[in-house]
Amino acid sequence: MSQQAQQMLDRHRETLDRAVEAITSRDYWSPYPENIKNYPEEAVKGAKQRFEALLKQPFALKVPAVGRQVGAEVSPYGFELGVTYDQPEQEALIMAMQAAMPAWRDAGAEARVGVCLEILSRLNAMSPDIAQAVTHTSGQAPMMAFQAGGPHAQDRGLEALAYAWQAMSQVPGTAKWVKPQGKHEPLVLDKRYHIVPRGISLVVACSTFPTWNTFPGLFASLATGNPVILKPHPAAILPVAMTARVAQEVLEEAGFDPSLVSLMPDTAEAPVTKELALDPAVKLIDYTGSNAFGEWLERNAIQAQVFTEKAGINTVIIDSVDQIKPVAQNLAFSLSLYSGQMCTTPQAIYVPKNGIKTAEGPLSFDQVASALAKAVEKFLSDNDRACAVLGAIQSVATVARIDECRGLGEVLLDSESREHADFPRARIHTPLLIKVDANQRDAYGEERFGPISFVIATESTAHSIELAREVIGEKGAITLGAYTNDDAVAEQFEQLAMDVAAPLSLNLDRGVFVNQSAAFSDFHATGGNPAANASLSDQAFVARRFVVVQSRRHGQLN
Amino acid sequence: MSQQAQQMLDRHRETLDRAVEAITSRDYWSPYPENIKNYPEEAVKGAKQRFEALLKQPFALKVPAVGRQVGAEVSPYGFELGVTYDQPEQEALIMAMQAAMPAWRDAGAEARVGVCLEILSRLNAMSPDIAQAVTHTSGQAPMMAFQAGGPHAQDRGLEALAYAWQAMSQVPGTAKWVKPQGKHEPLVLDKRYHIVPRGISLVVACSTFPTWNTFPGLFASLATGNPVILKPHPAAILPVAMTARVAQEVLEEAGFDPSLVSLMPDTAEAPVTKELALDPAVKLIDYTGSNAFGEWLERNAIQAQVFTEKAGINTVIIDSVDQIKPVAQNLAFSLSLYSGQMCTTPQAIYVPKNGIKTAEGPLSFDQVASALAKAVEKFLSDNDRACAVLGAIQSVATVARIDECRGLGEVLLDSESREHADFPRARIHTPLLIKVDANQRDAYGEERFGPISFVIATESTAHSIELAREVIGEKGAITLGAYTNDDAVAEQFEQLAMDVAAPLSLNLDRGVFVNQSAAFSDFHATGGNPAANASLSDQAFVARRFVVVQSRRHGQLN
Repeated sequence: MSQQAQQMLDRHRETLDRAVEAITSRDYWSPYPENIKNYPEEAVKGAKQRFEALLKQPFALKVPAVGRQVGAEVSPYGFELGVTYDQPEQEALIMAMQAAMPAWRDAGAEARVGVCLEILSRLNAMSPDIAQAVTHTSGQAPMMAFQAGGPHAQDRGLEALAYAWQAMSQVPGTAKWVKPQGKHEPLVLDKRYHIVPRGISLVVACSTFPTWNTFPGLFASLATGNPVILKPHPAAILPVAMTARVAQEVLEEAGFDPSLVSLMPDTAEAPVTKELALDPAVKLIDYTGSNAFGEWLERNAIQAQVFTEKAGINTVIIDSVDQIKPVAQNLAFSLSLYSGQMCTTPQAIYVPKNGIKTAEGPLSFDQVASALAKAVEKFLSDNDRACAVLGAIQSVATVARIDECRGLGEVLLDSESREHADFPRARIHTPLLIKVDANQRDAYGEERFGPISFVIATESTAHSIELAREVIGEKGAITLGAYTNDDAVAEQFEQLAMDVAAPLSLNLDRGVFVNQSAAFSDFHATGGNPAANASLSDQAFVARRFVVVQSRRHGQLN
Repeated sequence: MSQQAQQMLDRHRETLDRAVEAITSRDYWSPYPENIKNYPEEAVKGAKQRFEALLKQPFALKVPAVGRQVGAEVSPYGFELGVTYDQPEQEALIMAMQAAMPAWRDAGAEARVGVCLEILSRLNAMSPDIAQAVTHTSGQAPMMAFQAGGPHAQDRGLEALAYAWQAMSQVPGTAKWVKPQGKHEPLVLDKRYHIVPRGISLVVACSTFPTWNTFPGLFASLATGNPVILKPHPAAILPVAMTARVAQEVLEEAGFDPSLVSLMPDTAEAPVTKELALDPAVKLIDYTGSNAFGEWLERNAIQAQVFTEKAGINTVIIDSVDQIKPVAQNLAFSLSLYSGQMCTTPQAIYVPKNGIKTAEGPLSFDQVASALAKAVEKFLSDNDRACAVLGAIQSVATVARIDECRGLGEVLLDSESREHADFPRARIHTPLLIKVDANQRDAYGEERFGPISFVIATESTAHSIELAREVIGEKGAITLGAYTNDDAVAEQFEQLAMDVAAPLSLNLDRGVFVNQSAAFSDFHATGGNPAANASLSDQAFVARRFVVVQSRRHGQLN
C-alpha cells in the first residue's frame, strides 16, 4: 500500500470502525456535524465569496481528452452561474479509466477505503462551499443545502463505504485448505482471494439532491475498485464537479490516476447518459431520477448492475390521533420542506370520509383536512421563515405542474408564490393541497412531483389500507406514514409496510418527520417496490459491485 | 417461533455456527461425510431396492391443484424409470404459495433457518437413495452420484444457508435511536427492522447436476423467506422430487404450509419455464443450463433477480512443468470424469507450438499433446475403472456432438464407446481430444459440451494468455488451469484470472483437479464473466433475496 494511502487510512481508522459499528447497531451516530456552528468561522463566512469566485468561468478538472465545453446552470434563485466544464470524449475517457483500474484494484481494500475516507473528510471541511453550490443549483434553502448537501450526504457516503468495507472484510485474503485423507497425508492447497471490481461505474446524479443521492453509489463503487464516472444533471453540475475535484486531488496525492473519478457533464439538448449507460465497459449504474428513465435503464443496460431510485406515491394514512394539532403541524412541515421536492414528501393522505377519533373527541373528514391546510398556512405565514423552509423550485416544469394540478379536485389550500427578500427572481411556491375522493385514483395515484398533495376521502381505515396496498404495489413508495391509537390497527400498518416493502413512520407528532431519513439507522427506500430497486444503503447495495476471484496451488502443512 | 422449528434450530445450531466460521475462513470443512462408509449399512445396502420401489408409478407430493401428469425419464444406463408426477396448475400454485408466504416471513430468520437445517440433515441421511436417483437421471457413475449428488450438494446448500443466515444476522431486529439536541431533551425513536422476502423464487434445475446446482438457490431463497418452486429438467425430475418431498415433510412438521417448496415438473414437448419465469409473482430465478436460455432469462425476466450459471470455454494454459507425466495424469482425470459433462471440465488447452520447458528437458508441442492423449488412454484402459469414472452420457445430443466435432481438427485421441458390465445399453463414451491451430477459433472458441477438448498450438505463452483473455472475455469460463515454473509467468496468470474473473488453479499435478470445487472454500464461478452472473455462493448470492423494511415511532429513553 502507498504510504499516503496508509496514512489516510490510519487517520480515519476510528471513524471507519465506528461506522461499521453504526450500520450493525443502527443507532444514532454521525461523524459529520450537522450544526454549522461546529465549522470554523472562516470556512462559513468565506463560502459565499468563494462561490462567487467560481462563477462565469471554466471549472478545471483532470480530463483525459476534452470533447467540448458545456454548462448553462441557472440558480432557482434567479441568476446564471456561467460556469463551464470540459466534457470528456467518451471513448478516450473509458479507455483511460480502464487503464487506471488494475492499479486501483491491486492496491487492495485498505488503500482504497483510506482514499475514500480522506475524500469524505475533505468534502466535510468544505461543506459551507458545497452548500452554496447546492443552493444555487437545486434551489434548496441555505440551511437545508448545508445539512442535506454537506454532512448528511457525507454520512450516506460513509455508510455505503462502511458496507463496502464490511463486505470486503468478510472475504479472507488467503486460506490454507487441508483435507484429511484417512491414513494418507492430507491434501493441502494454498488459496488466495482477490476482490475484483466489475468495471466502470456510472453514477447519474439528480438536480434536487446532487450530492446526497450521489455519494452512496460513488463511494460503494470506488471502494470496491471500480472507476467512477459522475454524470451530473445539466441543471446541477457544480456540486458534483466540486466533489470530483476533491476526489481527483486525493487520488493523485495517494499515487493513483485522478481519472478514477471523472466528471461527464452534458446539456439538456445533447444528453449523453443513454450512450454511456449502454457502453459495454460500464458495468455498474447508479441512478436517481424519473421513473421513465430509471425503467429504461433497468430494461436496456443489461450489461450492468443497475441501482435505481425513482419515485412513487408516498403515503400517509390517518386512522386516529391523540391530538390533531401536533399531527397537522408535523405533516405541515413535511409538506413544506423544500416545497415538496423531496423523494420522501407525502403525496397521498388517506382519511376516512366519516372522520377520525381523537383523544379530544371525533373529528369530521373536513375538520381533519382543514386542520392540515391551516397548519401549513400558519407555518408559512411568516415570509422569511417560509422562504427558509420552502427553498426555491428547482425546475420550471414543477411550477407548471402546480398549475396543472389545481383542477384535479377541490382546493383545500392553494399554492401561492412568495418573494424572497434577497432574491426577488427566486421561484418560491407554497404547497397545493387538494381534496379528492377515493375513486379519483387518476388524480392521486400518479406521481405529482413538487408541492402537490391530496387528502383522500376513503370509506374507512381498512379501505385506506387497501388503497395504499394497491397504489404502492403498482407505483411504489419511498415513505409510508400512519397514525393510529389502536394497537390492532398499528399492527395492520406494520403488515402493510412489509407487504408493500415501504418503511413505516408511526404516529410522528414531534421533532421527527416522515420525509427525513437518518444515515446509519434508517434504510432509505427498500428496493422492494417500484419506487426504487435498491436501498441506500444495505448489503445488497455493495455486494454486487465486486466479485471474488481465487487462485489455488498445492501447499505444505505449516 | 414454533416449538418444532426451535428444536430443529437447536439440534443443528453447532453445524450452523461452524458453517458461518467456514465461509469466513474458507478453510477445509464439511459436516456431511463424502465417504459412503460413514453411512449406516442398511441405508447403503437398501438404496437400490428403495429406488426400484419408486419406479413405474406416481411419485406423491403435496400439490395445491393438479393440472396433468408428466414424467418420461430414461436412465442414461438404458431403461425407462416410469415415474410420473403431478404438474400443478400454475395460477393456483402461485396463489397458494403467496398465501403461505406471510406466515413463513413472520416466523423469522431463526425458524426458517432451523427448518432448512433439518431438511439438509434428512437429505444427508438419504444420500444413498439420492445417489440412485442421480445416477439414473444424470448418468453420473454411482460413486460420483453419491458424492456430488449427496454430501457435496448438501455442503453447497449449507454454504448458501450460512451466507443467508450471516446476511440476515447483520440486520438488527430493533434499535433505539437517540439523537442529542444540545440543551434540550434528545430525540428518541424506537425502530424495528423486518427481513422481507422478495416473492416467489423459481429454481430451474439442470439434467447433469440436479441437486448440486439446485441446493444453493433453494436454501438461499427459502431461508430468506421466499417460497420456492423447483422446476426440474424433464430428464432429471426424480432427485429434485425427492428433495421437495423431504422439504415438504419438514415444513409440515414445523407447522408451515408444505407448498412453500413445490415441484413444477414439465416435459420437453410442453416446457413451462418461460411462462413461469415471466409470472409477475416470480421475483427470484436461479438457473443452471444453456447460455441461450440463461441469456433469455437475463433479458426478459426483468421483474426478477436472475442468478444464472451457464457455460463458457474452460481453459488450461501450459507454459512449463516440472514433469509432464503427473500433469498429464492430472488433466486426464479432469477430462475423463463424468465424460467431460461437468461445467468445470477444461475444453481449451493452450500449448506453445515450439514446445515447453520441463525439469527433465524441453518437450515439443506434439510430445505434450501426445502425453495428454496417452494419459487419458491409459487411465481408461481398464474398462471397469473407465465406466466408474466416465459414467454415462446424459443426453443423446451430447453423443451426436462427439461425432460432429471429430472433423474440427486433427484427432489426437478418438472417442470410443464402451460397454458397461451391468448395463449393456448405457451410453458410455471416452474423451475426444483434437489438435488445432490458434487461428481455428471457430473450433475451440465455441462451447462443445461433453467429452470434447482441444489442444491449441499458440505462438508462445504470451499468445496463449492473450487468446485466453479474448475467448474468456467474450464467452466466459468457470475454470482456468495453468502450469508454469516461472514466478513471473505465474503472476501473469494471476493477473489474467483477475482480468477475466475466472478462478485459477495453478500447477495441479496431485490429488486435486481443476474441475473440482469444494464448498466453504472454493467459490464456484465468480459471476464476473459471461459463463455465470452469480457465484455459488457469496454475499451477492444471498443479499438480493430479501429487503429490509423498517418501522419507527417516538420512544422513551431507557
